[in-house]
Amino acid sequence: MTKTIDFYFDFSSPYGYFMSEKIDAVAARFGRSVRWRPFLLGAVYKLTGAKALPSLPMKGPYAVRDFERSARFLGLNCRIPGAFPVATQHAARAFYWLDEHDGDLARRFAQAALRAYFVDDRDISQAETVLDVAASLGVDRAALAAALEDDAVKARLRAECDAAIERGVFGSPYVVIDGEPFWGVDRLPQIERWLETGGF
Amino acid sequence: MTKTIDFYFDFSSPYGYFMSEKIDAVAARFGRSVRWRPFLLGAVYKLTGAKALPSLPMKGPYAVRDFERSARFLGLNCRIPGAFPVATQHAARAFYWLDEHDGDLARRFAQAALRAYFVDDRDISQAETVLDVAASLGVDRAALAAALEDDAVKARLRAECDAAIERGVFGSPYVVIDGEPFWGVDRLPQIERWLETGGF
Repeated sequence: MTKTIDFYFDFSSPYGYFMSEKIDAVAARFGRSVRWRPFLLGAVYKLTGAKALPSLPMKGPYAVRDFERSARFLGLNCRIPGAFPVATQHAARAFYWLDEHDGDLARRFAQAALRAYFVDDRDISQAETVLDVAASLGVDRAALAAALEDDAVKARLRAECDAAIERGVFGSPYVVIDGEPFWGVDRLPQIERWLETGGF
Repeated sequence: MTKTIDFYFDFSSPYGYFMSEKIDAVAARFGRSVRWRPFLLGAVYKLTGAKALPSLPMKGPYAVRDFERSARFLGLNCRIPGAFPVATQHAARAFYWLDEHDGDLARRFAQAALRAYFVDDRDISQAETVLDVAASLGVDRAALAAALEDDAVKARLRAECDAAIERGVFGSPYVVIDGEPFWGVDRLPQIERWLETGGF
């Protein structure tokens, strides 16, 4: 039996993007699969009072520098998008709608959307961009456009955000392995040791 | 010529303590020495509006767990002190007073004070504890007791905090290498690569 790892992220989080490029391969080395769970950081920040990194005094300018340096450190392409951060409910709704039919397609959509935003500077807050990204993977554009406005799909994303909050997810990325939570892409070395040793 | 690395920390910061146990050896491997610069996180938080980690919703409980796990990951002893976090102006003043006479002694005092707090759960917010720690290293207890109340020593610490803030230091630990800032003990792998390659 493969025990899954839960990977929570917001589509507008650079560190979430970095983790998305690493976590599947790390998990696979230890015979694990990953369950991707996009959520809305904004919903969490409403509860916790936290604010988006770039808006914070002193920490904001550092963060932009750290995003770019961390990308180079991890061997990833990344440039801070022109519009940053942005609202990501369209991308997250698309993910969960796809996920009901085809989990692998949903994951590939998420990866493509993250790269569209963080590599190609396409504004994924726009429904049109989300539709373009999905269509490039063969998704039915009209069906997805309808889904983005579907109350059931909206409710599904709200339920996923509530479940994430219930579990203690307060930032992106947030990885849970057998109940143990790891916040931040900088916890990758701890994640690897945890998977290797079963806990330390 | 050995170019120094600047290491900023608050005596009440667990991640600052972890860095204090690592940074000298890492720097030495690359022929660098380290200039220790304690400061008061409280002075920064007054400006930025940030709050101590344990007080934050959701992030607080995670942080306590992460402190302990990160200590194990780094092979360090650490237990969260009974009183945590605490005010650290006595420890920081003692450091700068010692530093005027003997930089090496000041560094050894800082290390001893951090271990007293994070390993032995001694409350370093109390002047008596700071005097005990310093006395164990041969420091003249009465002279240090007077220094802790000396306006010039108080002014020195304020000036150091102002200089840290001026430089952009917003958290602990914060390491600056040839102008490049690194926040957090989890940036040690990036620090090592930076020292090895001269930047990436």
